[in-house]
Amino acid sequence: MERWSLREFEAAARDRLEPAHYDYFAGGAGDEVTLRANEKAFARLGLVPRVLRGAAKLETGVTLLGSRAAMPVLIAPTAFHRLADPEEGERATARAAAAAETIMIVSMAATVAVEDVAAAAPGAALWFQLYVQPDLAFTEAVVRRAEAAGCGALVVTVDSPVLGLRERDLRNGFHDLPGHLCCENLRDGDRVRPIAMSPGLSWEHIDRLRDMTALPIVLKGITHPEDARLALGHGVAAIMVSNHGGRQLDTVPATIDLLPEIVTAVGGAVPVLLDGGVRRGTDVLKALALGAAAVAVGRPVIWGLAADGERGVARVLALLRAEVERALTLCGCASIGDLEPGMVRRSC
Amino acid sequence: MERWSLREFEAAARDRLEPAHYDYFAGGAGDEVTLRANEKAFARLGLVPRVLRGAAKLETGVTLLGSRAAMPVLIAPTAFHRLADPEEGERATARAAAAAETIMIVSMAATVAVEDVAAAAPGAALWFQLYVQPDLAFTEAVVRRAEAAGCGALVVTVDSPVLGLRERDLRNGFHDLPGHLCCENLRDGDRVRPIAMSPGLSWEHIDRLRDMTALPIVLKGITHPEDARLALGHGVAAIMVSNHGGRQLDTVPATIDLLPEIVTAVGGAVPVLLDGGVRRGTDVLKALALGAAAVAVGRPVIWGLAADGERGVARVLALLRAEVERALTLCGCASIGDLEPGMVRRSC
Amino acid sequence: MERWSLREFEAAARDRLEPAHYDYFAGGAGDEVTLRANEKAFARLGLVPRVLRGAAKLETGVTLLGSRAAMPVLIAPTAFHRLADPEEGERATARAAAAAETIMIVSMAATVAVEDVAAAAPGAALWFQLYVQPDLAFTEAVVRRAEAAGCGALVVTVDSPVLGLRERDLRNGFHDLPGHLCCENLRDGDRVRPIAMSPGLSWEHIDRLRDMTALPIVLKGITHPEDARLALGHGVAAIMVSNHGGRQLDTVPATIDLLPEIVTAVGGAVPVLLDGGVRRGTDVLKALALGAAAVAVGRPVIWGLAADGERGVARVLALLRAEVERALTLCGCASIGDLEPGMVRRSC
Amino acid sequence: MERWSLREFEAAARDRLEPAHYDYFAGGAGDEVTLRANEKAFARLGLVPRVLRGAAKLETGVTLLGSRAAMPVLIAPTAFHRLADPEEGERATARAAAAAETIMIVSMAATVAVEDVAAAAPGAALWFQLYVQPDLAFTEAVVRRAEAAGCGALVVTVDSPVLGLRERDLRNGFHDLPGHLCCENLRDGDRVRPIAMSPGLSWEHIDRLRDMTALPIVLKGITHPEDARLALGHGVAAIMVSNHGGRQLDTVPATIDLLPEIVTAVGGAVPVLLDGGVRRGTDVLKALALGAAAVAVGRPVIWGLAADGERGVARVLALLRAEVERALTLCGCASIGDLEPGMVRRSC
Repeated sequence: MERWSLREFEAAARDRLEPAHYDYFAGGAGDEVTLRANEKAFARLGLVPRVLRGAAKLETGVTLLGSRAAMPVLIAPTAFHRLADPEEGERATARAAAAAETIMIVSMAATVAVEDVAAAAPGAALWFQLYVQPDLAFTEAVVRRAEAAGCGALVVTVDSPVLGLRERDLRNGFHDLPGHLCCENLRDGDRVRPIAMSPGLSWEHIDRLRDMTALPIVLKGITHPEDARLALGHGVAAIMVSNHGGRQLDTVPATIDLLPEIVTAVGGAVPVLLDGGVRRGTDVLKALALGAAAVAVGRPVIWGLAADGERGVARVLALLRAEVERALTLCGCASIGDLEPGMVRRSC
Repeated sequence: MERWSLREFEAAARDRLEPAHYDYFAGGAGDEVTLRANEKAFARLGLVPRVLRGAAKLETGVTLLGSRAAMPVLIAPTAFHRLADPEEGERATARAAAAAETIMIVSMAATVAVEDVAAAAPGAALWFQLYVQPDLAFTEAVVRRAEAAGCGALVVTVDSPVLGLRERDLRNGFHDLPGHLCCENLRDGDRVRPIAMSPGLSWEHIDRLRDMTALPIVLKGITHPEDARLALGHGVAAIMVSNHGGRQLDTVPATIDLLPEIVTAVGGAVPVLLDGGVRRGTDVLKALALGAAAVAVGRPVIWGLAADGERGVARVLALLRAEVERALTLCGCASIGDLEPGMVRRSC
Repeated sequence: MERWSLREFEAAARDRLEPAHYDYFAGGAGDEVTLRANEKAFARLGLVPRVLRGAAKLETGVTLLGSRAAMPVLIAPTAFHRLADPEEGERATARAAAAAETIMIVSMAATVAVEDVAAAAPGAALWFQLYVQPDLAFTEAVVRRAEAAGCGALVVTVDSPVLGLRERDLRNGFHDLPGHLCCENLRDGDRVRPIAMSPGLSWEHIDRLRDMTALPIVLKGITHPEDARLALGHGVAAIMVSNHGGRQLDTVPATIDLLPEIVTAVGGAVPVLLDGGVRRGTDVLKALALGAAAVAVGRPVIWGLAADGERGVARVLALLRAEVERALTLCGCASIGDLEPGMVRRSC
Repeated sequence: MERWSLREFEAAARDRLEPAHYDYFAGGAGDEVTLRANEKAFARLGLVPRVLRGAAKLETGVTLLGSRAAMPVLIAPTAFHRLADPEEGERATARAAAAAETIMIVSMAATVAVEDVAAAAPGAALWFQLYVQPDLAFTEAVVRRAEAAGCGALVVTVDSPVLGLRERDLRNGFHDLPGHLCCENLRDGDRVRPIAMSPGLSWEHIDRLRDMTALPIVLKGITHPEDARLALGHGVAAIMVSNHGGRQLDTVPATIDLLPEIVTAVGGAVPVLLDGGVRRGTDVLKALALGAAAVAVGRPVIWGLAADGERGVARVLALLRAEVERALTLCGCASIGDLEPGMVRRSC
């Protein structure tokens, strides 16, 4: 049966995944206020289209930090793809990303090693998501692997000095990956390290990381405009407005509501990306009209993967691309550059 | 059993129509945010009546582009009336419109030819809704037919460079009319053309159309005030604020919320019409108080047609007229000209 | 079983009344937006109490147009009390009002003649509600009866140039009183006149009425501040902000939301009363803090009457009085004069 | 089964308590508008975290009026703990408070004498909640007992000139404690006095109380900024913004919405505390960011006590502390002093 929207993939994923695994992907922190807010905030924003602008030829491509994406929708880093697709996992996601010509941000917590992800999808544009580890030598080793695998940027998660309080996982007793899976990017000789989240992480670590690699650094998890300003002073290449899909601090506002202030603070100095709650082409357009250079989707990719493996991810990306194109055309825009803030209205 | 409100006709239509056909008429684009918003926005506006104004004689008539309507409620263009009334279709609608002395905007996608609609309802005030076709010669042929049938205006839909994403139809597999029906206004010799929606449509096409015909041109689907201003420069005779009943771009704000800015932009230069979510006489009054010259109703006409054919449409129009008259009287107004913006309040 | 709030009387009334009669009392016009708004608007207003003001002695009495009420809660005019209490009807209501020492506004549409209401409750403070009839001689006859019965004021309903659209009654086929009942105040020799609602009613009629009687005139149904200003120029003694309990024009804002502008427009020249949605002592305090001199309750009195006749009305009034007293004390007020606008906050 | 949030303790308490006792603790005044508002208002406030601030060492302690608390969450005064824990009652609560190193405000309406509470939990930081009794000599006797028991402050409830209208209790017929329990702090020789609530209470009584004792005086139940200003003039040591958990005057706004104005009025002169609706660590942070020195929790302590006695209270306090610590870290704060108003946003 054909699926016509991301929501149908969500339902399919709920059917197919182990309940505890579904909850791991679906859940958020605390009372899941932020989780719900991310989606609801998009619906409260109205789009006011333009007409009769003769936009027959459509251009949805975007170049970000030297990587080309055929549409302004990236694959956000999410952990443990082999829970959703036991054999192929992140390999399947990467192949679908390559086919869709978009950028996949490989998670540090991937269940397939970044080298294998890259090998499985030649030509895929990969970025690598990094939790800076207190052991900087180990961090450097991970960065070297990402560089060697051909990743085009480092996406450093800064909203996780400690893990969020995820009650679904506590109630389900979901603490660890099944024995046959592990975080392949955390291998250190014979052992696999756990991911260390560190409250001691500071701007100095960002400076050290910048010294460590020539890769452009994206800070993921910026929500306060003051931090956006600080980031510019530390030489980051891009900022990703993110509340970690509602999985870290609960009651952080929806990312789309935080975006305008960040865009103003950044003042065009670097691209601003966004994730959180993007489920429709119109969501993408709203973020772009308000100043984002692109958005990323996390859970929808997992839904596609759980529903139908690589084909499911491909279909999810195709649906999003078709929705973006249709919505752009309906907005009278020939390219995403034609979107502007005046096309977005806050309804009550 | 007597029906006392448009909502009862909606229920009757749901009972009588094929589910896929009901969905075709009822549904909207995407998550149907705009579909719901159109109706809800009216309920959020309050009416503050005036009293003791001795308004014993009531005048609800309005003259629009030379056509007289006995009430400020027109019949919006909707496709495929023979899905709701298999024998008579648009003929039945036109007869009811004529009896109610209001204007029917015949859809380009009518299942009865405009000539036959006109012949079935002598004296009916008809306007013709047009999707400008990329083949301008064919467009002109359609315009000539509308002129010859006595249509008094062309209502050019400008919000449809591409079809909206209507998931109900996708899920129902509703793609085409049943074999015995077709878009009679699209006949081109022996064949029937499909309606071409064109993202290339531009203001230049409006200019060409204006050169093509002496009929006044109404632009239907204007939502951005800047487009309203542009329209004035292209010689349009009226503007219809419309989001296509929520069937094209989802999350466009409710038309009644978009109206005030359009009215300001137009500055009285041409009449401003509105459709979307009008279900009550009080809805009509709110639109008029905020500056609309008249409103149009689409789905309610289909409900009447499906429930009881011509009689159903007549009853729907009679209910609306009675509601408009009663609400005007309760507002202390002797005519629609007595309505003014100060009688409308936004509640939270 | 003891009842502890007006809501419990509402439930009892629903149980005991004929469904069509319950609907007649409970229903509103159109989609009943205003009906619901009246109640909901009170809940959206917050009360911010004062403390430690040594308010040991409590004074809740108020003098209005020369009539004394022991609490700032009057009995609003409602029709047909013998539908709720077949034997005693308005007599029972009046006795309860007298016992509670408050003012009863007898409806022109009472099912007991005003003379009999007065006779049944000696010492009751009665006002008389009037629909000005186009036949002014008959209007004068009715006024004379009210004067002779000892009514202390005329409450002229100005929001009813025509009857509101009450779909519950249409669906229930409730058009007339049962044969053994009639509007006793409409007797004209051998016959009983129907109440004529007239769209021709104007300020001139108010002037004529003022010439006709020395009784103070209260205009009931003012919602627009401009009409409040006009009323002052026509010598009215008080203004009652009312949307007729949501029974006339639907989507009029809640009266408590309309009150502040009316109070400002009146500028203290005459007392401003309010009805609509008052169900709690805190509702009364909010209206008074925002400038009302008193409020009136309609449906709660019917609930009491239907539930338990005179005793039921007495209990409803006693509950309201106890709630007013308790809320006043909790607000740190010794009298209603201590309430002020700064104690009311709008929450979202 | 492990419980992971306060909500699970609420459910357990509902299961274990006598329904009438559960209702006594859970219920609020009137329509319970304020009861619900307290909790909902926190969810409408967003937290905007800071990142990369190297906050490895966490300090959550606070010193209030000379008492040390390991976290900015106190135990609000609540009556009748032996309804929740028949044997130990307030003794159990005090032991849990001592173990958690926080301050317990012992209720005047405790079912264990304050001396016994103190004896049961050596080292516990106790404050004593007081309803000033019109019989000042008896009030003084109670104060002396609190002093002798080692209480560090008097928390004077000022929002209760009369008891709130609690319909759950009226319907349940819950008027008195079971015969084997009483308000042990109200013993006066052989008898136990009822608690007298007095509308005559005034600022003069506060002055008299200040003369009576050297203990710092906290006024609990301030909601109006003008009263906060007055309190400063009467030498109070702290102010507790409280609407009595929604149990006194209904429709008072949520305390977290009242807090900013009170903080402004107080201008840092004395600490401002808050109770009402605190259920999450993020709620605590929002209150502190907006200027509160600490918060207090009432019902959650009862839930813990009913669910599992002292262990239940200990677990509730431990969950709250862990949530506060985690949320602080996720906000990039090393101590509660790092919180500031710019980290809180009002969403709609």
